[in-house]
Amino acid sequence: MSDIIRKAPGLGDGETIEQTQSFLPKFGANGLIPAIVTDHKSGNVLMFAHMNEEALRKTIASGFAYFWSRSRSKLWKKGEESGNLLKVNEVRTDCDQDVIWIIAEVEGDGVACHTGATSCFYRRVVQGREDGTVLEHVALPRPLGHG
Amino acid sequence: MSDIIRKAPGLGDGETIEQTQSFLPKFGANGLIPAIVTDHKSGNVLMFAHMNEEALRKTIASGFAYFWSRSRSKLWKKGEESGNLLKVNEVRTDCDQDVIWIIAEVEGDGVACHTGATSCFYRRVVQGREDGTVLEHVALPRPLGHG
Repeated sequence: MSDIIRKAPGLGDGETIEQTQSFLPKFGANGLIPAIVTDHKSGNVLMFAHMNEEALRKTIASGFAYFWSRSRSKLWKKGEESGNLLKVNEVRTDCDQDVIWIIAEVEGDGVACHTGATSCFYRRVVQGREDGTVLEHVALPRPLGHG
Repeated sequence: MSDIIRKAPGLGDGETIEQTQSFLPKFGANGLIPAIVTDHKSGNVLMFAHMNEEALRKTIASGFAYFWSRSRSKLWKKGEESGNLLKVNEVRTDCDQDVIWIIAEVEGDGVACHTGATSCFYRRVVQGREDGTVLEHVALPRPLGHG
């Protein structure tokens, strides 16, 4: 998979994006990087959104998650209005540094989704009776390993 | 946030994309939907990739994760060569059905990343001594809740 190994500005000689300890987040053509947020206790995925450089910088500096709202074209501090801020425990990046993983604790009511659900991922895909697949609502948080 | 509520083909009268039990995955302009994969036991995020409609359909039908490789422009059964297949425990979608979350078990060597790491997210962002942030390699799997 040598096509994945590429030079990025800031890499040392012979260093790859996979090995480096330099943080060189790769923003897409739209200036955004996808960010996954999971709950620090349950491990559930809470939400998925995008960050621009400012959102990522503010998230790391403040310890609270910021995103870029694509629908409203503005920086967005998650939970600023509701009080359900995302307190960041850890920020990770992946092998080619084009995705961010935030391990967080939800403050306020513990609600991460605009629908009022604990997590945005409150429905699972199951086989329907006649046609293909349907969605089933799941209770959240759900203990992991009991799928 | 009424701008998030929208009509999608297949929704019933007065039904929103957030409430429906119809599975109506929303693929982007490129025909792809982002997919997050977490480990069924540890809750760690293992990888992040994209699915086209065929990859999603095959994932649900076969119980093993398929993706669309953007770099190679082809369907890709994860682990087909290495034996590290992703056995799917659960498929979820989010409030507006434009993201997929796969809860999976890694077969073979239990390796999800092309680098040989258990997860692609093997580095966390930490404060450096002089300049801004650097990456620190973390041991994986890491027990959750001990951030």
